[in-house]
Amino acid sequence: MSKLRTQPYRGTRDFLPEEMSVRLQIFDKLYRVVETFGYVRYDGPVLEPMELYEAKSGQELVSEQLFSLIDRGERRLALRPEMTPTVARMVAANRGALAFPIRWYSHPNCFRYERPQRGRVREHWQINVDMFGSESPGAEAEIFTLIHRMMEALGAAKEDYLLRVSDRMLMETAFRNYPEIIDEQMKLVFSVLDRWEKVEIDVSRKVLAEAGLSDLQIVRVEEIIGLGLGDIVEIVGEEIAKTSPVVSILRDELIQDSISFDPLIARGFEYYTSTVFEVFDVIAENRRALFGGGRYDNLVALFSDERIPGIGFGMGDVTLVNFLESRGLLPQPNITADVEVIVGEGGALRPVLWEVLNRLRKAGLRTTTPPEQQGVGKQLKRVAKRGIPVVVMIQGNEWERGTVIVRDMNRTQQSEVTLDALVAVIRSIIATESLT
Amino acid sequence: MSKLRTQPYRGTRDFLPEEMSVRLQIFDKLYRVVETFGYVRYDGPVLEPMELYEAKSGQELVSEQLFSLIDRGERRLALRPEMTPTVARMVAANRGALAFPIRWYSHPNCFRYERPQRGRVREHWQINVDMFGSESPGAEAEIFTLIHRMMEALGAAKEDYLLRVSDRMLMETAFRNYPEIIDEQMKLVFSVLDRWEKVEIDVSRKVLAEAGLSDLQIVRVEEIIGLGLGDIVEIVGEEIAKTSPVVSILRDELIQDSISFDPLIARGFEYYTSTVFEVFDVIAENRRALFGGGRYDNLVALFSDERIPGIGFGMGDVTLVNFLESRGLLPQPNITADVEVIVGEGGALRPVLWEVLNRLRKAGLRTTTPPEQQGVGKQLKRVAKRGIPVVVMIQGNEWERGTVIVRDMNRTQQSEVTLDALVAVIRSIIATESLT
Repeated sequence: MSKLRTQPYRGTRDFLPEEMSVRLQIFDKLYRVVETFGYVRYDGPVLEPMELYEAKSGQELVSEQLFSLIDRGERRLALRPEMTPTVARMVAANRGALAFPIRWYSHPNCFRYERPQRGRVREHWQINVDMFGSESPGAEAEIFTLIHRMMEALGAAKEDYLLRVSDRMLMETAFRNYPEIIDEQMKLVFSVLDRWEKVEIDVSRKVLAEAGLSDLQIVRVEEIIGLGLGDIVEIVGEEIAKTSPVVSILRDELIQDSISFDPLIARGFEYYTSTVFEVFDVIAENRRALFGGGRYDNLVALFSDERIPGIGFGMGDVTLVNFLESRGLLPQPNITADVEVIVGEGGALRPVLWEVLNRLRKAGLRTTTPPEQQGVGKQLKRVAKRGIPVVVMIQGNEWERGTVIVRDMNRTQQSEVTLDALVAVIRSIIATESLT
Repeated sequence: MSKLRTQPYRGTRDFLPEEMSVRLQIFDKLYRVVETFGYVRYDGPVLEPMELYEAKSGQELVSEQLFSLIDRGERRLALRPEMTPTVARMVAANRGALAFPIRWYSHPNCFRYERPQRGRVREHWQINVDMFGSESPGAEAEIFTLIHRMMEALGAAKEDYLLRVSDRMLMETAFRNYPEIIDEQMKLVFSVLDRWEKVEIDVSRKVLAEAGLSDLQIVRVEEIIGLGLGDIVEIVGEEIAKTSPVVSILRDELIQDSISFDPLIARGFEYYTSTVFEVFDVIAENRRALFGGGRYDNLVALFSDERIPGIGFGMGDVTLVNFLESRGLLPQPNITADVEVIVGEGGALRPVLWEVLNRLRKAGLRTTTPPEQQGVGKQLKRVAKRGIPVVVMIQGNEWERGTVIVRDMNRTQQSEVTLDALVAVIRSIIATESLT
C-alpha cells in the first residue's frame, strides 16, 4: 500500500512543540496586557453562514478568498476569514443583557484561500480585540494605548513600528468635495489607496482611470493623499472635522505623538465607518502592515435595529513572528521536562517510584519516567540527550535509608536526599540552571 | 434591508465571556496536570486531506459525519473530526528528529456533522493527549494515572466515574477461537459491542444475524462479553494473553484497582490495535462515556515504513461540562474588572488619569476607565451594575494633595490614598472580597 503524505495541507502549518511553545508565549504576553485593560475573552464558531461575509467584508475576500462548503442540509457555510462579523453577530444577539461599553477579545484561527508566500498562509491565528458601545474618541485613545502596550510587552521599541491612522469618513468627504468623486467610485478609490504603496504608481492611475476618473480627478486624488491633516480639515470644513474621532485624537496633546496621520491607510474591510489604523513594520526588508483595525459603527445594525458602535483590531501570528524574528525578539521554546525519575534495580521499588512521581507532580514539577525501566547508564544517556536538567534515581541501598539520589545533569553532581527535601533540592538546581 | 440572523450555525456555539471563562478554567486545570506529566503542547491544521480519515477513522465517520470541501485547486479536504490522524502524520514527518518516547498534547476544535442533541455538537473543543514510542504496558499505566489525576483536578471523586478498559486484540482472538467469527465479520462485531449498552438487545442480535452469524455464534458472542478476564485468558491462551498490555496492567497490584476490565468497550475508531478504554459517567441520568482512547500501534505506519506505537485519548468539552454541571463542579466565571478609574471633574486631570491607569495595569490589575468621562454619580451606578469591586476617583481637591479616593464598592467605604500606596490598598480590598 502506498504511504499517505506527511505534509500538512498547502498553506497550513504543523506546530511542533518547539514552535507551539513560541506561539503560546507570544500570545500569553498579549493576553496578559489585554486583560489588564479589562478585556474578557469570548469565542465563536469556525463555521459561519456565508451571508455573514457577503454583507460587508468586501468583494475580493468573498469571491476569491473564502473557504466555503455546503452542508448535508444544503446550508451555505464559510470557514471564518476574520472574527469581526462573528463578534458583531454575538453582540447583536445578546445586546439586551450586556452593560456597554463592553471590552472583548478572542484568539481565533481564521482561513483564507491565499497563494502561500512569506507572511501569507491559509490558516492563521490571531488575537482580536474589540470595544462596543462607545462613539467617543476615548475609545480610540484606549485602543491605541493598548496597542503600544502590547508591542512593548513583546519587546518592541517605539522606533520598530509606526501606528498609522486615518479616517475614512474624513477622506471620503475630502474626495467628494475636491476632486468630486461620486459615491459609486468611492469604494474603488479606497481599494486603490489600500494598495498604493504596494504597486507602481502607473498601476494605481490606470485603475482609477478605468473607474471613470478624469485625469484632473486623478491628479487631485494624488494631491489629497499627500496632504497633512490641517489641509484636509480645511477641505472638509471644521463642522465635519469635529465629528472625526481621529481629528480629536490628533488634537489631543496626550496622544498625538503616539500616532501618525496617514491618508493612505484605508484597510480592506468595507464595514469600517471612520477611524482606520495599522501598525506598520518599518524595517527596510519588511515595510509592511503588521496588523490593523478600525471603527465599524454600523456593523451590529446588520443584525438588529439598534446601532451599537464598535472599534477593534486583529493581530495575526504570521506577520508578528516575522517581525519579532527580524529583531531577535522571539521567545525561547520551553518544552523540556524538569526531572526524570528512574529506578535502579528490579521492579520491587515500583511503589516508591509511584510515590516519588506523585510528590513531584503535585508540586508542579514536570516529571517523566520511562514507560519501561532499563539499565541506569542507558537511561542517563537518554536523559542527557533530551536535555532534562535533573534525574532522581531510586535504588535499593539508599531507599533502605529512606533517601533517593538526585543528579544535577549539567554539573554531573549528585547527592543523597530525603523524600521530604526532594522538591526543594530539585527546585534549587533548576533555579541555578536558569541563571546561567 | 432584512436583518441577518444572530444565531450561530446549527450545532455550533457562541461562547460569551461568562461561558468562555468557565471553559478556559476547566482546560487550564487539565493543561496543568498534563504538563506535570511532561506532556508538551503541539498544534495542527483544521483542514486536512480527506485521505487522512478515509484510511482508518471508520466508515460511519467518513461517509456520514465529515465536513468536507473541495478547494479552488480541486483538492478534497475535510475539517478534522478528530486529532489522532493529524498527530500521527506529524510524528511520521518528524520521526528522525524526535527522542522517543514523546509525550504530546493539544487543544483542537473538531468538527462532525451530527444531529445536535445533549452532548453532541458539530464543533467541539477537546484536549488530546498522546504518547508515542512505547509498546510497554508502562505507557498504559502512565495514561491511566494521568486520567485519574485529571479527573481529580476537576474535583471529581473516584465514585463519580469508571475507567473501563478492554483489549481489542484479546477480544478478537477470543471471538476467533470460540464462536469462530471470521475476519470479515470482526469489524461489525466490534461496532455492535460499541453500541451494546445504547440499544435493545434484539437490535444487536438482528445486526449480528444480518452479518451472517449463526444463532449459536450470537449466543457465544453474548457469553463472551459476559465473561471476566480470567475466562477470556483461558479462551485465548496464556501465550497470547502475555502480549496484552491490558492483561499486564490488570495483573499489576499497583494499578488493577483503578480500572475495570469490560469486554463491551470497543471504541469507534478502526485504528486501535489493542488497548481501548473509556471514562464512564456513572450518574443514572447520564450513564454515558465521557471520553475515551486507546492504543494505535500501526497508525504512524500509514505514513512511513517505521512502526511507531502510540497510545492516547481525547477529552471533549461538551460531555465534560455536563459531567461537572451535574455534580456542581463547574468553576465560577471570572470576568469582572478589578478596578474602574474615574475622573471627578473636567479634562484637566486627564494626565493624572493616564498615570494612574498605567500604574494599575503594570501591576497586573484589570483596570478600566469609561471612554467618555461623565458625572461621578452616574459613573458609580454603572460600576455597581457591572460588579466591579473597586473605584478610584481622581478629583481636583485630593489631587492637589497628591492623593486619590479609593472606594470599596461592596462596603461603600472610601479613603484617601497616595499614588504609591494605591496598588497595595486595591489588592487588599480585592483579597478581603474573595474571602467573603
